[in-house]
Amino acid sequence: MERSSGSRDAGPAVTPVAVVLPAGGSGERLGGATPKQFCAVQGRPLVSYTVRAMERISWISNIIVVVSPENIETMKSIIEKYGHKRVVTVKGGITRHRSIFNGLKVFVENEFSNHLLQKPEVVIIHDAVRPFVEEDILSKVVMAAKEHGAAGAIRPLVSTVIASAADGCLDHSLERARYRASEMPQAFLFDIIYEAYQQCTDYDLDYGTECLHLALKYCKTNAKLVEGTADLWKVTYKRDLYAAESIIKDNLSQQVCVITDVKEAVAQIGFRLHESLKSQVKVEAISVSLSRNDSHLQNIFSGQCYNFVCINDKKYAIQETQQLVDMLEKSNLPLLYPVVLILMHLDISEDISFSIGMEELTRIKKFAGEMKKKNILVYGLLVQYKDHLVLQETVNSAAALIMALIKDRNPELIGQLLVA
Amino acid sequence: MERSSGSRDAGPAVTPVAVVLPAGGSGERLGGATPKQFCAVQGRPLVSYTVRAMERISWISNIIVVVSPENIETMKSIIEKYGHKRVVTVKGGITRHRSIFNGLKVFVENEFSNHLLQKPEVVIIHDAVRPFVEEDILSKVVMAAKEHGAAGAIRPLVSTVIASAADGCLDHSLERARYRASEMPQAFLFDIIYEAYQQCTDYDLDYGTECLHLALKYCKTNAKLVEGTADLWKVTYKRDLYAAESIIKDNLSQQVCVITDVKEAVAQIGFRLHESLKSQVKVEAISVSLSRNDSHLQNIFSGQCYNFVCINDKKYAIQETQQLVDMLEKSNLPLLYPVVLILMHLDISEDISFSIGMEELTRIKKFAGEMKKKNILVYGLLVQYKDHLVLQETVNSAAALIMALIKDRNPELIGQLLVA
Repeated sequence: MERSSGSRDAGPAVTPVAVVLPAGGSGERLGGATPKQFCAVQGRPLVSYTVRAMERISWISNIIVVVSPENIETMKSIIEKYGHKRVVTVKGGITRHRSIFNGLKVFVENEFSNHLLQKPEVVIIHDAVRPFVEEDILSKVVMAAKEHGAAGAIRPLVSTVIASAADGCLDHSLERARYRASEMPQAFLFDIIYEAYQQCTDYDLDYGTECLHLALKYCKTNAKLVEGTADLWKVTYKRDLYAAESIIKDNLSQQVCVITDVKEAVAQIGFRLHESLKSQVKVEAISVSLSRNDSHLQNIFSGQCYNFVCINDKKYAIQETQQLVDMLEKSNLPLLYPVVLILMHLDISEDISFSIGMEELTRIKKFAGEMKKKNILVYGLLVQYKDHLVLQETVNSAAALIMALIKDRNPELIGQLLVA
Repeated sequence: MERSSGSRDAGPAVTPVAVVLPAGGSGERLGGATPKQFCAVQGRPLVSYTVRAMERISWISNIIVVVSPENIETMKSIIEKYGHKRVVTVKGGITRHRSIFNGLKVFVENEFSNHLLQKPEVVIIHDAVRPFVEEDILSKVVMAAKEHGAAGAIRPLVSTVIASAADGCLDHSLERARYRASEMPQAFLFDIIYEAYQQCTDYDLDYGTECLHLALKYCKTNAKLVEGTADLWKVTYKRDLYAAESIIKDNLSQQVCVITDVKEAVAQIGFRLHESLKSQVKVEAISVSLSRNDSHLQNIFSGQCYNFVCINDKKYAIQETQQLVDMLEKSNLPLLYPVVLILMHLDISEDISFSIGMEELTRIKKFAGEMKKKNILVYGLLVQYKDHLVLQETVNSAAALIMALIKDRNPELIGQLLVA
């Protein structure tokens, strides 16, 4: 899911770099009561994703989140709940520019904290509602800011831009190729952007939105423009929240770990399932008894796999699974994203009058209910291994159900027993 | 799902109005091989949604879809498969403007069809990849075009627009409030836009994209600008396809029809389920034996409900359901959108050693497989009516599962039996 940033040396050779994240918007364009940066995506507020995108980068020293006064406590509890580090919450002003200015003051004035944070050479300004920012573009704007004093990500215009006359009719349209959309992140030498804000008129503080413009107007700094990727989009409308949710689900379902018991029949199914799944997704297959504390499994946790299938011929081996759950909890994986855990029961009995008893259904449901509290989504999957002729078909059907459960991550369907 | 357009009188008093839909884009920004207008959303190509948005409006006489030569047959088969009416497919040119020009020629030259279509007074130009256009904005641009000669929908800019200097640095940024994004739909007096295209230089035909600009440059017509709603967005990136999918699913899950048997226990559960569901969704409850051809049910079909729950105390009364399926098919509902059909089995037996046999699981799966071919997604839902103390809890759990199935419309989970 997340690319690690490697060592400190991998970043721009600037120490330190700080980030200011204005998160004070009211989200009126979204049409909802909750400002968009606090809307939940897979159960977690959007702003936490953006903070995480910054926090995982080792060469970023401080992340200043600026929120409106009424959301200070909300933001602090988000930082606490999701274990964010190197984050300082600052009270915003009544406009975007005033909020950013407040964020910058943390490094210069005593107004917001008992001890001053170390003033960075370069400061990145980003939006709380652009959660998909990658290290590459952050690194590029920082290096360009170091050279030019200011830099900002740009994108091609999606629509033609027009100017209207006073009568509400077209005055002229702009030649699309000559213009760009100014996006985030932007980066500045701290002294330049701070100077610009200090010089800034009240009019600009109240009605402007563009930091690059301030650097140009007040410090004669022409920002370097850096072409960004489509990932830089801003969550603005409700449809953007839908898109964010789908992208995150998509990212979470790129890899699955199949854990099979050592028994032969089980291992054989595991192998076939592996083959069927791997055309759709990256598969890690482990054939172990979970009771051993396997180092391979530890590697998978650190590789950030969020989907597990445990194949067993015992009925939904809940006890055996408990060990996996313990390891998951220790790994902190379920803290940031819901983890899918599919208990696949391989029925190899020769009993023809097969049936599913209410007792076992209740047992899976109860287990799933407990796991839900840990942000682990548990589903049952029954695979019958009776008729060897249709075995491949059954395995393919199991693979399709596994992919559907992983892609949907539907919390309402936990504890259900599906049949392949 | 769809608002009907009422009588012909409801539209602008202009006869006739035609639509040209350029659908020749290559979709390179989407990053996929399939051009975005042909990408499937809930199983149906995006362009079909846009055609449908036009076709349902009674005062639109002809819809000209312009596609690149290699997609002519694809487009024709889409029109055939989804039963679109009043649509003509026309071969596009190598640029957007040349394609639109080809679309207009259908009304003037014999090049594209054996008989000329009646020349409209006003022509709407829209994008194939803006499927959520509403009658209101179409009506507004048509009326404005009648008065001003040309009109186009506009939206506020989401990002600041900037101009770059030759060295890749910021030259200046535009004051956001003075500019607008030019969107679609646009409308023109036919004679004006046709004249503009006839006068148009090769350079403009090859490098321009903005029809309002042509009307201004070649016919001195200043288009009236009409503020549009956020619905007018264009499917440009992969994330937009995700958003479109979610919006359509959301629209489809606004209403559910609960059909209960006449027996008392069943009707009582039906009532409780109704109460539990109606806090989340509009519910139509019908207490009938489906064997009667109920006129109430017919009304629901024409009201475009796409979700049905059949409650029965017989085990997944597949035979009884067949009649509902027949009525659904006759109504043509499943032609455009997948219909969800939940077979809810109310188990009122006193048998403690309850179990689900493999035979009944196989029966639901087989039925669901057949229904899938008709675009009806069938799921089983078991509700146990044993312990009166937990009845309300069970009903709430059933309601949550119903909502999850309706909202997800997951084709991989059809034929599964869920337990409330």
